[in-house]
This record gives sequence, structure tokens and C-alpha cells, in this order.
Amino acid sequence: MSRIEAPRDEDDAAAAVDSTPGSPRADRSALVDRLLAGLPAGSVLTDPDVTASYAHDMASFCPAGAPAAVVLPRTVEEVQHVMRTATELCVPVVPQGARTGLSGAANATDGCVVLSLTKMDRILEINPVDRVAVVEPGVVNATLSRAVNEHGLYYPPDPSSWEMCTIGGNIGTASGGLCCVKYGVTAEYVLGLDVVLADGRLMSTGRRTAKGVAGYDLTRLFVGSEGSLGIVVRAVLALRPKPPEQLVLAAEFGSASAACDAICAIMEGGHVPSLLELMDRTTVKAVNDLAHMGLPETTEALLLAAFDTTDPAADLAAVGALCEAAGATQVVPAEDAAESELLLQARRLALTALEAVKGTTMIDDVCVPRSRLGDMLEGIDRIAAKYGLTIGVCAHAGDGNTHPTVCFDASDPDESRRARESFDEIMALGLELDGTITGEHGVGVLKKEWLAREIGPVGLEMQRAVKQVFDPLGILNPGKLF
Amino acid sequence: MSRIEAPRDEDDAAAAVDSTPGSPRADRSALVDRLLAGLPAGSVLTDPDVTASYAHDMASFCPAGAPAAVVLPRTVEEVQHVMRTATELCVPVVPQGARTGLSGAANATDGCVVLSLTKMDRILEINPVDRVAVVEPGVVNATLSRAVNEHGLYYPPDPSSWEMCTIGGNIGTASGGLCCVKYGVTAEYVLGLDVVLADGRLMSTGRRTAKGVAGYDLTRLFVGSEGSLGIVVRAVLALRPKPPEQLVLAAEFGSASAACDAICAIMEGGHVPSLLELMDRTTVKAVNDLAHMGLPETTEALLLAAFDTTDPAADLAAVGALCEAAGATQVVPAEDAAESELLLQARRLALTALEAVKGTTMIDDVCVPRSRLGDMLEGIDRIAAKYGLTIGVCAHAGDGNTHPTVCFDASDPDESRRARESFDEIMALGLELDGTITGEHGVGVLKKEWLAREIGPVGLEMQRAVKQVFDPLGILNPGKLF
Repeated sequence: MSRIEAPRDEDDAAAAVDSTPGSPRADRSALVDRLLAGLPAGSVLTDPDVTASYAHDMASFCPAGAPAAVVLPRTVEEVQHVMRTATELCVPVVPQGARTGLSGAANATDGCVVLSLTKMDRILEINPVDRVAVVEPGVVNATLSRAVNEHGLYYPPDPSSWEMCTIGGNIGTASGGLCCVKYGVTAEYVLGLDVVLADGRLMSTGRRTAKGVAGYDLTRLFVGSEGSLGIVVRAVLALRPKPPEQLVLAAEFGSASAACDAICAIMEGGHVPSLLELMDRTTVKAVNDLAHMGLPETTEALLLAAFDTTDPAADLAAVGALCEAAGATQVVPAEDAAESELLLQARRLALTALEAVKGTTMIDDVCVPRSRLGDMLEGIDRIAAKYGLTIGVCAHAGDGNTHPTVCFDASDPDESRRARESFDEIMALGLELDGTITGEHGVGVLKKEWLAREIGPVGLEMQRAVKQVFDPLGILNPGKLF
Repeated sequence: MSRIEAPRDEDDAAAAVDSTPGSPRADRSALVDRLLAGLPAGSVLTDPDVTASYAHDMASFCPAGAPAAVVLPRTVEEVQHVMRTATELCVPVVPQGARTGLSGAANATDGCVVLSLTKMDRILEINPVDRVAVVEPGVVNATLSRAVNEHGLYYPPDPSSWEMCTIGGNIGTASGGLCCVKYGVTAEYVLGLDVVLADGRLMSTGRRTAKGVAGYDLTRLFVGSEGSLGIVVRAVLALRPKPPEQLVLAAEFGSASAACDAICAIMEGGHVPSLLELMDRTTVKAVNDLAHMGLPETTEALLLAAFDTTDPAADLAAVGALCEAAGATQVVPAEDAAESELLLQARRLALTALEAVKGTTMIDDVCVPRSRLGDMLEGIDRIAAKYGLTIGVCAHAGDGNTHPTVCFDASDPDESRRARESFDEIMALGLELDGTITGEHGVGVLKKEWLAREIGPVGLEMQRAVKQVFDPLGILNPGKLF
């Protein structure tokens, strides 16, 4: 196969393998032969039934194509071979972790090579003095978290898929989680990267030291780039000492706006909770319906706050008082870890419970300044009423990061259309409130039309130009982000 | 003046104004006329005696040219006018804050426009609920720190020049300080930026929310870019709640290696000091000579640790025990803020004291993994002996960030040469120990030959390509970084 022009957008990318002489099947066969020249036989999958199972992540409403092949490399050299091959044949490459993403960023395009990093899953080093871990991209978040725990260390980022998702995927989307209100997102914990570039060359960015300012911060440029700039094959991660066990408080409110007042008072009061989560009445009801947890059905908003300090009871008392001052109808501080765990269960069940409402959900992650959270919740209520939909909201409230979750029946075309429209309106509302369209899930396919609205034409032009630097042929995860 | 080719390096940049028809003076006059077309008269300085005073920052061994003009804009529009003019005439622009930098990154090139942002010094907003401040780049670090303090908030980055240096300069070099061991560097506190691009267009990056992953992280790309990618005209900064007053402990050691053992034990023990600083015997002696502080002359290393927790005395007791176990000859915990301040004075005097040794210093900021700090100090001793020089070391020890400070007589050419050579050897040692050539001062002119050695040819190529995206004419702070 001769070198062909770079695909310019998703449709072209999908057509790339087919656009050269010969049938698609012959092209695919040539591609697979080239891949196998530098990879063990078992690491290249071509059975369409098998490759189809790698086609998409967990996002709704995101188209996915049929991969030409799925490659499961085990070494940096194998990744380099894949990228050299892809560059030579101008075939799109879609890097994947565990495909737990919620924006379609890991979705295949027709004829692409899916590059699954899940077999590169070694923890290479854990160093308690330097407080760093060095890992391959396929390490599962929970595996790393438990491994560093054994050294008295803590890797904070905890997306809700943490038992499945990989560090490489977390880096690709700059994942967040419940911990962020105190500990920040994945981006804060990536010190350095080894990256295989589009042409197969290996580049190291960043450092393994606590500080470093040698040149541009390409590490952070790669974090959140959704596999569109290069393939992360190794990461140096910052760790923290393991904090004390957190203690949780639950506070019930008669209105969402009272709960938001409490959140503002907590943050303005200088408190640093390790978790500050909000569930609206729809979510509380859904959880009750699913798990019969006995949450009061009159609850309009449930706030969960936690502290992992040396005296969490004192912190809970202070925060409980602020909740009461803001009008909480009930405040329940846990007395130990077991009670805390019980209180957190409701929050953990939220998404599953909302899924049960109508069979399908579309989960958003608009993030607003926390002072605008009340306006956001009010607006979402308005949007739900306008479209005649159930929209449950749980939120990483301390970050202003909402998860409006549209519940709909995917077999009903009209309801599906309304779901999609309400989703767009929620993003518009987020931008109106000085927020961002995505706090932690990324742009992927789902929000790419919205990216331009958030960052503006100049920003978009510069972002595209940066992409061009790292991926001149446009083969790295084409059709995502832009 | 017609448009001319982009300067390719510092020499070309310096020649840019002169390379067109007409005399340099006529060119300068045309440049000044164009600048004045969009700027108030008082904001363009051309008196050579005055402009010469803007020629360089505080770094030794860094050449500086003669600016054609110094511009002191007060508005975003004025900065845009300067950049449009510079692009049209292809004149280099050197952005400056307070010129307290230590790498020559703010040094003028011949014929450049110095763009001093010091008059854009408004704090536009402080929001205690969102925990953000919005500032112009010329705000002095200490001014911001005090202003947010009044709202019960804390802006951690505290470079030693904090009473003079500006937030814009801090962003340009991703500055650190004493706080970093607990609170990280400037980069951690920049949420969003408004940037005037080389061609005068305005671009917004990032967000004012706690989280956000919409597109590539251009904010962090600009942080530490030393004015080489665009002009920061507004920044959204993250704030923290003001922590309790810190309590300090001093521990004296009979050897630097024992002090480094203590540092490793403290960090491995899961402690989170708000400050962890080391002074070697040369520095202790210099401080004694300058200020007669009565530090024991037998001290081979002085360690200062501080905690700003709710029970700092308990933390100091635990850390004091670790110091004793590592062989500390004396451990002195402060009992209150006044005693703490007294203990910190020695550290604050360190650089002034080392300057007094020989009249001139060359201060380095090599950062190594903290587990290699002992090797670093031993190596610096070896280098000092080899070159027959006095090299004092104080270090942000908790970060592994050393400040080897070469003391020399600048009027002695041979000693100056040895100083420069020892400085290079210290950087080489840092790289050998898995460190970085610059923990917090930046590359500027001083270390640009070393950048390539740290990041390698592929990294350098990609960094240059990124620069090209934002500065196709090469007019933004040419000759720095690369």
C-alpha cells in the first residue's frame, strides 16, 4: 500500500484504508501483515465479532466505526511499531484503555487500528521517599491505589469507574472523581510521561522530581488530550501520604437552593472537605426505588460532606452547624468508618439508580463556579420541565461539577431527541454561568461541537495548530475533540 | 518599514530593526511613531539611559541588548497594539515583570521593544466562595498575598523575591518558593489566562471553575513559557483557605548526609511539612559572618521544618524525633510564631550572606528526586573542591530543589571562568541523578544550552514546533529557552 494523503476528518479517516487501490479486505490484510511483522501473533485481533467489541466506550449518542484490527501491545517497542506502521500506511489509530469513558473519545472509526493499552499493565516502581509511582498505561486505577496504600501512600484520582478504568485512560481524559474537592484531578498527579509520537518516535516529557520548569509543559499538554497527540506508554505519578480514614456527614435539605447555600458557606468558611457531594430529589428517589435505603422521600437535596483530617468529628460538627444554619432539616454525622461507608452507598448507587428509571441515561459533567451551583440546579429543573424529561443531578458540589443525568427510553425516538436537545441546553446553561462544558469526562465525540463555543475561534485555531504539530497526518484518534 | 523575514536566533533578532533600509535611528523612530499611534505618550520610553535600566534581570553571566523602546501599557488593547505593531514591523518583543528572574529570561535583545507589564497591576476580583482571584499580570506577589489574606484566603507561591516580583513574571517562570513542599508551584494555581498572541489577537485559555477538561491545556503550556508564546494580560488564580500560623523546628547535624537521612525519614514517614529547608555549613557560616546569629560553627547542616496544621507542636515533636534518630546534634522546636520567625531569619538571609562572601554569586536551582539529595550535596562539595571555589547550598530540601550558590569575584577572570564551569558541572550532576536543570528559575538565556541535554532531540524538536505555532515570526522573547 502506498502512502496516501492524511485524512482531514472522521469520514475521510474512516475511508482511508479503502481509498487506495484494491479491496478493503486486501488493504486490511496488508495492514495486518505489516502489524504482525513487529508483533506477536496473539496480540493482533481481526475477527470482526471480537474487534466489534472494542468499538466504543460507555457514552450514549456517539457513533462508532468498525476497526480493521485491534492491537494489544505489551512493550514500548510494539507500540512504536504500530505507530510507524500507521504513519506509513496513513491508517487512523484509536488508543484505548478500559473504555469506561463517557464522551466517545475511545470510539473506533471505520478501518482504524484500535490500540488497546490494557496489556501494558505493570507497576514499575513505587518510591515512598520520592512519593512517586512509575506505571505503564494499562494499570487499573484501583490496582495502583491498593498497591501504593501498602506503602502508606495515596493516589487520589478516583473516577467512579476506578475498579475498571486504567491510568492511561485517566491521563487521556484528565479524570476526576469524588476526591477532587480536596485533592484535584489526574492532571495534578502526572509528573512525567513517555509518549510514542505519531511517527513512532519516543519522547519523554516532564520529570520525576517534585518541581521542574525545563521547557514547555508538554506533560500537561498530553494530559486530557484524549489520545490525539501521542500514545502514553509510561507515566511518573505523584503520590501523597495516605490520609486518615474519612468521616462522613449527611445533611438533608428542603430545597436545592438551601443545600447550595450550605455549600457556599462551607467553602467560604475555609473548610477543606475530602468529599462534598450533592444528590437532588430525583436522584434520592431513584436510589430509594432501587435499593430501599429509607432516605426520606421529602428530601429535596442530600448533601454529603467528609473530612480525612486528624480530628474529623470536629470538622463535621462545624460543617453540620453551617448546614443547619442554611436550613438543613436533618444532619447525620457518622461516628465511624462503617457508618461513613453506609452514608456513601447512596451516592455510589446514584448512577445505577438513575439508569433504572428509563433504561438509558445520558450523563453530563458541566462544571460551574461553585457560587453558581444554585443557578445551575434551578436551570436544569427548568430544562427538565421544558422537555418533559426526568433529569437527576448528582454533583461533586465542592467543585461545582454537576452530573445532570437525563433518563430516557432509547427506543422512543421522540424522547431520545428531547434527551439530546436537553443535554445541549444544559451545556449552554453551563457556559452562561461562566462554567465549562466538561469538568472531567472530556470532549470526545459527544461535545466536540460545543468545544468551539467554549474556547472561541482563536482558541480553536491554536488548538488545531498544536494538534497538527504532533499529528501532521491526522491519524491519532481522528474525529475526536475537534 | 516593510515586513521582513522572521529572526531565527538572538543575533538575527538583534539585527532585525537594522536589517531594513534606512539607519537604525530612522527605524527606531518609525517604530516609536507606530507605537505612539496606539499608546499614551508617557507609556513609551526611548531615552537610552532609561531604557538601558530595563535591559536585564538579576541573573549573572547573561548577555543583554539595548532596547529600542520600553512600553508600559495599562490596558489589554494597548498590549494588542504593541503586538500588532511588532508583528507588522517584525520587531522582537521582550515581556517583563519586575525583572527579579535569575535566568536572563527577561533580558532585552538589541532593538527590541521591552514590554513591561508592571502598570497593569489591578486585582480585578477576589471571590472567597469560588476561591479564585482574577488579576492583571503586574500585580506584585506580596500585594496579592496580603489582599487575599484579608478574605481569609491564601495564595501559596512565595518566591524569595515575593515583595517585588509580579504574578505575570511568576507565571512566566512557573515560580516556586518555600511553600512548594506542601503547596506546589505557581503552575498549580493558574486556572485560566487571557493571552495576547504574537499577532495581537486575544485568546482565553482555561476556566474559572475548579475543574475543566475542554480541549488541550494551553493554560499550563503558557505557564513557564517565559513570554515566548504570548503575553499574559489577565490570570484566574486558585486560592486556598488561609492555613493556621506555621511553627518551625531547627535541627543541627554533624554531616550533610545525616540531614538528608532525616529528610528522607520525614517524607517516608508520611509527614507533610509546610516548609523543609536545608542550609549547608558554608551557608550557615556565611549567615553567621553577616548577621552574627550565633549558629554553632560546628554545624555541617541546618534543617528547618515547619507545620501549619491544627496541632503543629505534635508534628514538630514527631519530626524532631526523626531528626534525632538520624543523628541531629541539636533539635530546637519553636514554641510560638515569634520564635518561628527568628528561626526562619537565618534562611531568609542565606543568599544575601552568600553574596557577601565574594561580592558575586551565581545561583543554581537544580532539582533532584529527594532520595538523591545526599548524593547531590556530596557531588557539589566535590565540584567546589575541584574548582577551588566556595559553593554554598541552601535547598528547598523537601522538594529536592537545591540552590547551589557559587561565590566568586567577578573582577577575576579566572575565578569567573571557574564559576561558570562549576555551574555547568552542577547541572550535569543533577541530570545524572535523575534531576532537572531547573526546579523553579527557568531556562532563559542561562541554561538554554542545557535544555536540549535534559529533554533530548525529539523533545526539543517538538518544543520548537510548538513555539512556531504561537510565534511564527520568532518575535516573542527571541533567544530564550532554545
